[in-house]
Order: sequence, then structure tokens, then C-alpha cells
Amino acid sequence: MQLTIKPIARIRTDFPTKFGIPRQSGVVKELKGRIVFEPEYRNEDMLRGIEGFTHLWLIWMFSENVRSKWTPTVRPPILGGNTRIGVLATRSPFRPNPLGLSCVELAGVERRADEGTVLLVRGADLMDGTPIFDIKPYLAYVDSHPEATEGFRTVGWSMLSVDLPPELLELVPAADRDALLSVLANDPRPSYHNDPERIYGMSFGSREIKFRVADGILKVTAVENPVK
Amino acid sequence: MQLTIKPIARIRTDFPTKFGIPRQSGVVKELKGRIVFEPEYRNEDMLRGIEGFTHLWLIWMFSENVRSKWTPTVRPPILGGNTRIGVLATRSPFRPNPLGLSCVELAGVERRADEGTVLLVRGADLMDGTPIFDIKPYLAYVDSHPEATEGFRTVGWSMLSVDLPPELLELVPAADRDALLSVLANDPRPSYHNDPERIYGMSFGSREIKFRVADGILKVTAVENPVK
Repeated sequence: MQLTIKPIARIRTDFPTKFGIPRQSGVVKELKGRIVFEPEYRNEDMLRGIEGFTHLWLIWMFSENVRSKWTPTVRPPILGGNTRIGVLATRSPFRPNPLGLSCVELAGVERRADEGTVLLVRGADLMDGTPIFDIKPYLAYVDSHPEATEGFRTVGWSMLSVDLPPELLELVPAADRDALLSVLANDPRPSYHNDPERIYGMSFGSREIKFRVADGILKVTAVENPVK
Repeated sequence: MQLTIKPIARIRTDFPTKFGIPRQSGVVKELKGRIVFEPEYRNEDMLRGIEGFTHLWLIWMFSENVRSKWTPTVRPPILGGNTRIGVLATRSPFRPNPLGLSCVELAGVERRADEGTVLLVRGADLMDGTPIFDIKPYLAYVDSHPEATEGFRTVGWSMLSVDLPPELLELVPAADRDALLSVLANDPRPSYHNDPERIYGMSFGSREIKFRVADGILKVTAVENPVK
């Protein structure tokens, strides 16, 4: 038994690559995204009443992570990469079915000449172009469980201090600055990296951000136009 | 572009048919379910660490509701069945991709000779045998949004008073009584039904429940062994 599903939309975000994407949706609330429906699903009726909801669920595809074979256990970055946990006890991409689940805030519904009616969202942890299979309203009375405990995750996640000199910050479009600062504070290095000398590069929107991390401080060393 | 997904498990619940299933997961917390993995995915390693989580997400298939054609709008029962709402602004089954999303409580992990390691869950609104594509841990810090508003749903849902005579209640297995009472209070009639004379029949576990509804009171008229 199998089910074949088709993307109804794609999300447009400031992350052209996987690198730097926050580990969970909603962690960086400033992140802006735009859900653009596939031509076949560009039907405004589907969205009637959606503007009354503040939060939405997205079910999407780990399109960059599809492996031919999933693994029963993974090593979550939060545990330092040394402990194996069952894949179903994590939100890891390397699952039997490569489905992702993210809660985003609905910031607006906008009609555009070129893209039809789009959903403007905040807090999306998705790579630009990620295929979306379903959008559902968030229903607090069944979906919200602040009392839920989180197994091994309770060890916590440490944030970085961000040192972004004003003259470099000015090179980032004003509307993107808060989101960028928050992404950096969430430690955008790949898992298990800890080389204080290394200069990392991360694409964010129309800019390339270079940084170094040492002693819990992320120092931005350059803001560049990306090499085309 | 398409993705083919395969069920990793099926859930076993007390609902042999769609009739009577609560409209959302978690509404009837007493409901017990058992997630049994498909032989191919009967690998205990996949679950390592899952017992540390109190809540799980299930992504599942609206297997009884697959229509050849979805509709852009639906008429939610909560609005009396007269108002059309965009399907993506609802949790209706008649979606472009027939994926369901439910939060359940994890009550235990049990090793069984015949079924392998199973997950015992509470609050599942799923029909017996529903295919499950993914199980993810619930992470309160990103999934819980008690402040979320719920659009048209704020009109509220009225519960029924349940009149279940003690001599009939005794015919229900003791472990199932709380769940049954809660299912009945949530009004298990099909949408838009409102015929005070009509006797409804609902299968629940090993029993057939007969009832009538008038003036906000659900009166159980019989508890029978189901006709085989």
C-alpha cells in the first residue's frame, strides 16, 4: 500500500541553501516566508476564511535530504552528536517518509499579479523552494500542549552572542536585520562544528554573511553580495 | 513532481467505522489506541528515547475519505453546514493530499510477542486500521501556541448531556466507560443530523451503542453485542 502526493505550493524564503536554517520552525519568529501555490492549485476559494487564523501547520518535503535509505537511529546535534536516538523520537529529516512539519505564523494574505494569492508567513525554517503538501489551520484547543515534556531535549540549547559591527549591519537590507541577528544567535554552523579559526559563509536573502565562532560569540567578519 | 509514501504503522482503536469518531484528536483524552508497526518497520531502534516524550504527532491517511476529486471549499459542521470555507482553512478530510495530523498522548511503549514493540496512545481520533506515515515527538517550545486564534471556530461547539442508565453502562467493559461517555458527550451524530425521533447506532470496541438525541440530551437506549 502506498500513497502518491503532489506539492500544492512552494515556500519562498531567504535561505537559498540548507546552511544556516534554524533547527526548528518558530525559533526565529522574524523569518519571513511566502507561500506560492502551484499553478494547478491557484484557487482563492481554497483559502476562504484562512485569514482568521494566526498560526498554520505546513506539511512539507525534506526535498534536499531524500536519501535512498533512512536510518533507524540518528545523532541529534543537541546531544553533541555522540548519542544515538531513534529517528521517530526526533524531528530529523532522515525518516522513513521524508515529511516535515512546521508551525508558522500567518502574517497576511496577498493577491499578486504574477503569483496569484500568496500566504505571507513568519517563523518558517524552510529552504527556499521547499515543496508543501498541505496547509492546515492551527487549532489551539487540540494542538497546544504547553505541558508536554520533551525527553532528551530538556538538556537545552545554548544561544550565541552576536557581534555584528554597525558598518556591516548597514549592508543588510533593513527589513532583514532582525531575522538575520536571530538566525546567527541560534548558531547556524553545521552540527558538531567547533573550529574557532574557521570562517563560515552563509547565504541569507541577497547577501553572503561571513562569520567566525569562538567562546560562545559569533563575530560577523564580512557582509558581501553573493558571487553569481 | 510527486512523492510516494508508505505507511510505517497502523493504529488500532475502538472505532471500527467512521461513525462516532470525535471531530478532532485530543478532544476525548480517554480514547485508547495502539500503534502497531508494519512488519518492515518493526525495528525497536527507531523508537529509542521516545518514552521521554509525553505527546506525539501522527501524520496519517484519510483512508476512508479518499475521493477522486477534492473540493476547494467545504461546509464545516461547526458552522451548521451552511457556510462554505476554504478547505485549507479547515481540518476537513477532503483535501488536495489526504493527510491527517493528530496530537496524541504517549501512554506507554510495550513489547508484544505478536505485534513487536507497540506505542500505547491516548486521545486518538482515528478509525481502527488507519495507516500512519510518520510519528514525531511533540516539542512544546515550537509546537505549543496557546495564544493562537481560531478564525470561524470561535463560535464554539456545544456538548451534549449524556443519559446512560446504570444497567446499560454495566454492559460496557469497565475500562472503556469513561471514553464512551466522553465520545457521546461530543455528539457522535453525523453532521447536520437533528432528528429527535431517530435511533442512532454506533460501534465502539466490542459493543454496539444505540441512542437518541433531543433537546441537548443524548439518551442511550441499548448496549448490544454487534451483529457479526
